Amino acid sequence: MIKVFKHDGGVTSEVDRVDPAWLKPNSGVWVWVALESPTPDEARVLSDVFHFHELAVEDALAEVHHPKIESYGDYLYLILHGIDFQASEHCFTTKDVDFFLGAQYLVTVHAGMSRSIDKIGYVCTKDDRVLGEGPGLLMYRIVDTMVDNYLPEIEKLGERLDEMEEEVFEKPNTALARRILDFKRDIASLRRIVLPQRDAVGRLARREFPLISEQLAYRFRDVHDHLVRLSDEAMFFQDRITSILDAHLSAVSNQLNQVMKVLTIIATLFMPLTVLTGMYGMNVHLPHLPGGEGAQFWWILGIMLAMSGAMLAYFRHNRWI
Amino acid sequence: MIKVFKHDGGVTSEVDRVDPAWLKPNSGVWVWVALESPTPDEARVLSDVFHFHELAVEDALAEVHHPKIESYGDYLYLILHGIDFQASEHCFTTKDVDFFLGAQYLVTVHAGMSRSIDKIGYVCTKDDRVLGEGPGLLMYRIVDTMVDNYLPEIEKLGERLDEMEEEVFEKPNTALARRILDFKRDIASLRRIVLPQRDAVGRLARREFPLISEQLAYRFRDVHDHLVRLSDEAMFFQDRITSILDAHLSAVSNQLNQVMKVLTIIATLFMPLTVLTGMYGMNVHLPHLPGGEGAQFWWILGIMLAMSGAMLAYFRHNRWI
Amino acid sequence: MIKVFKHDGGVTSEVDRVDPAWLKPNSGVWVWVALESPTPDEARVLSDVFHFHELAVEDALAEVHHPKIESYGDYLYLILHGIDFQASEHCFTTKDVDFFLGAQYLVTVHAGMSRSIDKIGYVCTKDDRVLGEGPGLLMYRIVDTMVDNYLPEIEKLGERLDEMEEEVFEKPNTALARRILDFKRDIASLRRIVLPQRDAVGRLARREFPLISEQLAYRFRDVHDHLVRLSDEAMFFQDRITSILDAHLSAVSNQLNQVMKVLTIIATLFMPLTVLTGMYGMNVHLPHLPGGEGAQFWWILGIMLAMSGAMLAYFRHNRWI
Amino acid sequence: MIKVFKHDGGVTSEVDRVDPAWLKPNSGVWVWVALESPTPDEARVLSDVFHFHELAVEDALAEVHHPKIESYGDYLYLILHGIDFQASEHCFTTKDVDFFLGAQYLVTVHAGMSRSIDKIGYVCTKDDRVLGEGPGLLMYRIVDTMVDNYLPEIEKLGERLDEMEEEVFEKPNTALARRILDFKRDIASLRRIVLPQRDAVGRLARREFPLISEQLAYRFRDVHDHLVRLSDEAMFFQDRITSILDAHLSAVSNQLNQVMKVLTIIATLFMPLTVLTGMYGMNVHLPHLPGGEGAQFWWILGIMLAMSGAMLAYFRHNRWI
Amino acid sequence: MIKVFKHDGGVTSEVDRVDPAWLKPNSGVWVWVALESPTPDEARVLSDVFHFHELAVEDALAEVHHPKIESYGDYLYLILHGIDFQASEHCFTTKDVDFFLGAQYLVTVHAGMSRSIDKIGYVCTKDDRVLGEGPGLLMYRIVDTMVDNYLPEIEKLGERLDEMEEEVFEKPNTALARRILDFKRDIASLRRIVLPQRDAVGRLARREFPLISEQLAYRFRDVHDHLVRLSDEAMFFQDRITSILDAHLSAVSNQLNQVMKVLTIIATLFMPLTVLTGMYGMNVHLPHLPGGEGAQFWWILGIMLAMSGAMLAYFRHNRWI
Repeated sequence: MIKVFKHDGGVTSEVDRVDPAWLKPNSGVWVWVALESPTPDEARVLSDVFHFHELAVEDALAEVHHPKIESYGDYLYLILHGIDFQASEHCFTTKDVDFFLGAQYLVTVHAGMSRSIDKIGYVCTKDDRVLGEGPGLLMYRIVDTMVDNYLPEIEKLGERLDEMEEEVFEKPNTALARRILDFKRDIASLRRIVLPQRDAVGRLARREFPLISEQLAYRFRDVHDHLVRLSDEAMFFQDRITSILDAHLSAVSNQLNQVMKVLTIIATLFMPLTVLTGMYGMNVHLPHLPGGEGAQFWWILGIMLAMSGAMLAYFRHNRWI
Repeated sequence: MIKVFKHDGGVTSEVDRVDPAWLKPNSGVWVWVALESPTPDEARVLSDVFHFHELAVEDALAEVHHPKIESYGDYLYLILHGIDFQASEHCFTTKDVDFFLGAQYLVTVHAGMSRSIDKIGYVCTKDDRVLGEGPGLLMYRIVDTMVDNYLPEIEKLGERLDEMEEEVFEKPNTALARRILDFKRDIASLRRIVLPQRDAVGRLARREFPLISEQLAYRFRDVHDHLVRLSDEAMFFQDRITSILDAHLSAVSNQLNQVMKVLTIIATLFMPLTVLTGMYGMNVHLPHLPGGEGAQFWWILGIMLAMSGAMLAYFRHNRWI
Repeated sequence: MIKVFKHDGGVTSEVDRVDPAWLKPNSGVWVWVALESPTPDEARVLSDVFHFHELAVEDALAEVHHPKIESYGDYLYLILHGIDFQASEHCFTTKDVDFFLGAQYLVTVHAGMSRSIDKIGYVCTKDDRVLGEGPGLLMYRIVDTMVDNYLPEIEKLGERLDEMEEEVFEKPNTALARRILDFKRDIASLRRIVLPQRDAVGRLARREFPLISEQLAYRFRDVHDHLVRLSDEAMFFQDRITSILDAHLSAVSNQLNQVMKVLTIIATLFMPLTVLTGMYGMNVHLPHLPGGEGAQFWWILGIMLAMSGAMLAYFRHNRWI
Repeated sequence: MIKVFKHDGGVTSEVDRVDPAWLKPNSGVWVWVALESPTPDEARVLSDVFHFHELAVEDALAEVHHPKIESYGDYLYLILHGIDFQASEHCFTTKDVDFFLGAQYLVTVHAGMSRSIDKIGYVCTKDDRVLGEGPGLLMYRIVDTMVDNYLPEIEKLGERLDEMEEEVFEKPNTALARRILDFKRDIASLRRIVLPQRDAVGRLARREFPLISEQLAYRFRDVHDHLVRLSDEAMFFQDRITSILDAHLSAVSNQLNQVMKVLTIIATLFMPLTVLTGMYGMNVHLPHLPGGEGAQFWWILGIMLAMSGAMLAYFRHNRWI
Repeated sequence: MIKVFKHDGGVTSEVDRVDPAWLKPNSGVWVWVALESPTPDEARVLSDVFHFHELAVEDALAEVHHPKIESYGDYLYLILHGIDFQASEHCFTTKDVDFFLGAQYLVTVHAGMSRSIDKIGYVCTKDDRVLGEGPGLLMYRIVDTMVDNYLPEIEKLGERLDEMEEEVFEKPNTALARRILDFKRDIASLRRIVLPQRDAVGRLARREFPLISEQLAYRFRDVHDHLVRLSDEAMFFQDRITSILDAHLSAVSNQLNQVMKVLTIIATLFMPLTVLTGMYGMNVHLPHLPGGEGAQFWWILGIMLAMSGAMLAYFRHNRWI
């Protein structure tokens, strides 16, 4: 699907084709072309009308690419990723949105739906100022919305991390270890997307490209700030999840300790008793304890209880129980 | 709440509004506007009188932001964090204080109470020199006070770390592991606040901005030094807490070792005795030990004690007990 | 084996020797010399006709060299590695391909077969444009093909990693630990090849050498992008495999925990019973339980079952079983 | 205590006050003022005579500061740390020595005794050349002596490390783990002192300050070299101590393994014997083994020994014993 | 021992002293002075004839120094280390060789024997070209030979690493852990020598010093390449040895697991049997199993075998045996 928005003389209107004359420097016309999952036919506008470099066009139409920014002289080519965290809370997906920014135009290319672009596309014809402030500021608006969408997902990740930290000491187990490992991979994936994104926007903010005005650079500095915080957060998460994996091992060892203490207590309580009963089961003449025949059993029982009590007192003393 | 301090002709006075004429270069007047949790109405002074960039105003009024410094041409925008370590000694909170520094004015914005700003605000009208040395030096005073407030908290953290290190070898347990993990997160948070703060002040100290005079840069170099030390300390703490987590695992394993030694000693002492008593409980013709019928029991008891004694000697030899 | 391709007046033809006149600046002729496992005799063309530096010639003819790029004034010397992942999926081999790029010529040297060069060599005479776009673009084509060959191997590595992650929690064992270690070494080897390759191509992309035109640099920027992604991937894999080794230890400890729980349950169930039967085996007057002589046994059996049931309920309560 | 040395016309003499005229550029007089734990009165010379910046004076008189170097235009302010390793071999202390270096003077400030300064102060009046080569070379002499004092302490640390490495495999225990942790903290402290020191001296060696002549820079390059080696050594120690902590865990686990093997051997030897004796203790008609009544016991004993022997052979086969 | 080689008019000859006239720029004479463990008398040539800086002379005569390169204006001072891996395959030693390179001369200083220098010294008088290509190329020859000597030692280290990796899973034990730790220290030592060496030669390759011609820089680029590979290798080894230490812990835990499984199986098999025999040993009226008195024992034995069989089937099902 292809949409063309044109801003001329203070009015934004949706048109159905791009007039190459608009694209000339200082044409007085601002154009936004939004390509959503373009057909090969629709995609031809990139090379035939805009004459973008074939490698950039290839990248824009290909499926997945890492975030980057490239200057082709009179236009910039920027790839960013929108986040799409699955409801199943397990798999982390991002979709790339491609931007071509020229002095008079912005071209966006994305596969599937993009909430950010749909939203801006919707207000674009309602509010003349959206495109009326130029294609650079329009790109800023889209990028800003995309980056803002990361924040709630990051918060969710933080909450999952808190839960895991809780759980690791409650009931460490293999399934939890597996989830920690999965989570760690997710965080690493996030970092791998956010870092190049941060660097690409940082280059916009530092005004490495003449196309970016000082006012626009202030805007991108703000987006860059958000991305710096995101990547900080991701680094911080990665650090925490590594500690949690270490703590898990510690917790498992602690649990093992507890189990072994139970076993040791049981063994220590009952093994001497076994020997005692074994002695009175020997087919030899046994020493007679005070009292009559019937009292023997109770004497032995008493000795057994006394032994057990002493053992328990000893364990209590060592804080084992 | 909004407070306006004006220094004119050697005298500092509190006034109730800002005259835009004062803000002109070389107006001869120095102004400090302190906004504490400003109402939307009070906050309007930022855009209406000072004409700050809307993004900076947004950041200043929003709740949490990472420390940073930004130049908007004729004024600087600086965010720092004041520390607020909870009495509960568990949760670490920081509050951001925003500074707008121009040639003639300083504007501070903060939510809630800030001890540093309250203190400086109090002396400001008492001592004409405080504002009389210019808005840059005033900002230095506030920043210096804020950074000084970190030091006692850092010391407290160091003490907690010492205690944990002590405890890890005394009685390693899951609750301690959890506290170590919590502490590690606290330290990481601290670093995340101190590092960008250090870098922001470092840019002031290196005189990257023409607004900062050489004399002022010497001052900020001093603050920068303190922040370098703070971030060093935080890094050092993080290193130590990681070692403590490792040592905890080692301590747990050592404890397990102790428990298992007890179990092994018990088993090794009593299992042979069980077999011996079992043998004398067999319903077969038993070999007669020297002495009469009554002596049999005591012979067996003697053998048992001898066996136990030998075992204990063996363990003692291997330094198990 | 030596192959010489010559492009003159729009036509590419295979010739059998290089005329030194072609190599002069602006000769109007483009030459590609492909040396495959050259004999010493064939290799002499490098020094006798092209007059390459003896160190570069030595490197080109020697067996293994790390990827690098070097400028010798009027020609570049580039070493890259083609990947060759063994079917046995265990051993990772790479073969170096050497490029000498001059203004009028490209010389490639490789030992054994290289799929990329064979392929380009095949189309070279069929399609005049391949060499007709100059030796730089020809080199780009070969390098691009070589880098593309890495991708399927990287994907295979990713799948093996997924399998290992699965297996680590299913049945952790020493053989798996060994395979993890082997895999880690493979990944490290991959990184050691890809990183210098990325840097070498990056220098081409940044136009550090005057031989590389702007159009050509755009192409190498694309290849560089692929290599950046490859090295990112390798770093990511290395991070994951380290976590998997940690998780393996955690899984082994968990397994140990399970084993110990079984032992503890068994011991806790049967040791008291042993004592009970031992007591009734004592040669003393035993207390008479209610019921006749025949009921004694069943009473005792009942007590034993009750004790075992209580124990099991306790374990169930503690979630051990 | 304040000492003033003056070098004028080839002769060094100790005087009791500083004449401000001496401090003027090209005064022909070289001055060294050494302040040892100065009283507030003595310290006033820093601001009243030398007019040093108040912040530098504050730092010089305050207790502990991180090593750093700062230029205040016509003089340098340098903080270094002298090492003082306690005889108790446990606690690591350093004392800061402050240097103010001007074209005509050197001022040193330190709290307590400094062996390096005392020594140089002693030879200063004996040998006219010491101060006669200028304040820069004098500073070099002091700094060089201070850095040389680190070396024997570093060697002692290395020996302690060797001992610990030995001990970790001999008898791993909690007390050792604690000492490893303490040592690690010491090493980190050392690094925290040496690194900024290295960087400060490095700036002198790279001639970042016009006060440092080329000849002097050669000298400081030598000191810098020593400090680079010290920091390398500290990094290397830190790496080793981390490995030792890991190895300790490994050794504890190994020890646990040994303990468990003993337990398993004991249990495996005696549990079958218990069952055997239990069977012959049953009140049922027992199968008659060959031989008479008296032989029964010896038969059983023989079976028991045979079982134990077989078990032991099996363990021997598996290299458990 | 001191050897002086002089190249004049195309002929290299060994002479017994250095004529200061030869050392003048463009003297037309090339000189190589090789000092092997020089006596104080012989060493005086460094200061008296060549007038080297006293600090450089001190370093050259002192025993051990880290590799470095320093420019003293008209001559370079370079320290490199020759490797000397002990036959005992345990201790790693390197010896420093010092080079002073001037426009007309090369001075080498080393303690003890150096194979590289002996070899070059031997061919020097045989082949006039060796010194005839200038002192720079002569230095290159020596350095190249020294670096080449590292390679076989590196390979040996790689083989030892492979063996350890094999052994760690075969029979993990404390002695192996110790050897791993020792090896790790060796690798770290190697890196500490190779890294500064690489950087020193890198500075020669990058032509930071005017003394190095472009042709010579190509040569040192080649040596630099070798050193880059060596340091890569060392880094890679360090990474592997760390993984091996981790894997060792994993292997020990696995082994513990095996031991505990044996114990648990034994306990689970025999404890129920003990209870059963205990029950039939009780002095109460026992229930009569089918068959006559003599059949009772065999019934019980049958029950015991059935119980054991069921247990073993259960363990087999859980893949414990």
